[in-house]
Amino acid sequence: MFHQALKAAARDVQAVFDTILAGYDDQPVTRAMRYAVTGGKGLRGFLVLETAALCGVARQSALPAAAAVEAIHAYSLVHDDLPAMDDDDLRRGRPTVHVKWDEATAILVGDALQALAFELLSDPVIGPAEVRLALVSSLARAAGAQGMVLGQALDIAAETAGRDLTLEEITRLQANKTGALIGWSGQAGAVMAGADTGPLADYARALGLAFQIADDILDVEGCAETAGKRLRKDADAGKATFVSLLGMSGAKARAQALVDEAEAALAPFGDRAAVLRAAARFVIERDK
Amino acid sequence: MFHQALKAAARDVQAVFDTILAGYDDQPVTRAMRYAVTGGKGLRGFLVLETAALCGVARQSALPAAAAVEAIHAYSLVHDDLPAMDDDDLRRGRPTVHVKWDEATAILVGDALQALAFELLSDPVIGPAEVRLALVSSLARAAGAQGMVLGQALDIAAETAGRDLTLEEITRLQANKTGALIGWSGQAGAVMAGADTGPLADYARALGLAFQIADDILDVEGCAETAGKRLRKDADAGKATFVSLLGMSGAKARAQALVDEAEAALAPFGDRAAVLRAAARFVIERDK
Repeated sequence: MFHQALKAAARDVQAVFDTILAGYDDQPVTRAMRYAVTGGKGLRGFLVLETAALCGVARQSALPAAAAVEAIHAYSLVHDDLPAMDDDDLRRGRPTVHVKWDEATAILVGDALQALAFELLSDPVIGPAEVRLALVSSLARAAGAQGMVLGQALDIAAETAGRDLTLEEITRLQANKTGALIGWSGQAGAVMAGADTGPLADYARALGLAFQIADDILDVEGCAETAGKRLRKDADAGKATFVSLLGMSGAKARAQALVDEAEAALAPFGDRAAVLRAAARFVIERDK
Repeated sequence: MFHQALKAAARDVQAVFDTILAGYDDQPVTRAMRYAVTGGKGLRGFLVLETAALCGVARQSALPAAAAVEAIHAYSLVHDDLPAMDDDDLRRGRPTVHVKWDEATAILVGDALQALAFELLSDPVIGPAEVRLALVSSLARAAGAQGMVLGQALDIAAETAGRDLTLEEITRLQANKTGALIGWSGQAGAVMAGADTGPLADYARALGLAFQIADDILDVEGCAETAGKRLRKDADAGKATFVSLLGMSGAKARAQALVDEAEAALAPFGDRAAVLRAAARFVIERDK
């Protein structure tokens, strides 16, 4: 049920992008944008759609918001893969944008995808103007220099710090680098419904951290071919990770505890949150 | 009067950034953001404030919108200066961000400034939610792959086209690359006031094109030290420009005709638009 819902979310979000990009100039940058938003798991968009459904928001209303966060996520991967950043040539099992096109195109693709995210959030189908603005404002903060960009900046700083980060520092780094967008996605449904964001915020926070610990585990134990990206990067770079700090079994235990926490946060929703519970388990069981 | 108004706009927009960035983590990326939004002419922010004043919108309400477009403009310069793009080491008379810091920081600074622009536009002080959303939506389009990014993509495509662009192609390129943001800025006041955007749209369109023709003239006749950036780039790269296509006197005549057009579009506002008329003359008389 969960896997079907995840696939359906990715398919529906993809259709949003296809429709929009079909109206754009047929330029390399347009083709590269389409390429960049294709082939991911679509977990963030899925979280938007599922929390929206849980809070009684129509799927059609939630779709532009789901596409918006996937656009931000896709832009961050394109820029993060650049030679001056992580210098990756493989992403989602295919050449990265700057490898398939060039660096200039990759920079522009990321920039255009970020703008597109905010254009998507202004779509009246989402709901009242105040709701759309709440989404714009919170996504801008989650993506910016007090959210995702801060996380990436802390990550870069860590590489030249001359010492390993502490567990507390890595937790803060990841809470921004991946946690901010996942947190936004996991609360979006409540924001759109004008409902209390508390329980979903707790769910999303635990989920985001579990996701990152699982990423660190995957970086050590995973198969690059299945993951569709380069692995062992952190070990090769001698970077401290949740695995290096907690040990493999400690990291797995911590991830499991966070998944339990995420599931517990969904208690107020009862059985209706079954798919979101499955999503929490998925983030630590995935192989890519 | 115009020069005082331009300086006052730059000062007030700077104060918006200073206040916001003071609340951010003291990271290199924060310091580089502050650096990137400092020292420009501030023409786009000025246009927002002046058209707002003309349409009866309080300066305090217009300031976040003025800062938003300056944030987008600053991000575009930081990314445009990157080695993979125009590879410039001088901007506003100082080292570019990737020279003073590094490429990764410059990429992140641009990304964070774009997010900040949309955060600024969600500030309730600007006015009703519908107005703020109109600004978000139109700025996202002006900045994205059907606006500024398209212009930059067309510029890159031109370099490898193997032939010179026609006048029509260059006009379209510039209408997107610089025209989209100037156009947004010149209409912002009418959007905020819920007034007819027609006359200001005509003004801004003519102003934007005159601005770019003046840039091409400055690239040939200007002084790099005064301009604070590298000049003769287009000639060195053998790129077609308004000057190469129209000749120097033809380009100057065209720029003057556009300024006349811009001034004429302000007729409905009478004497109250004196500063905006002066702005139109300034864009072709400036030496930087």
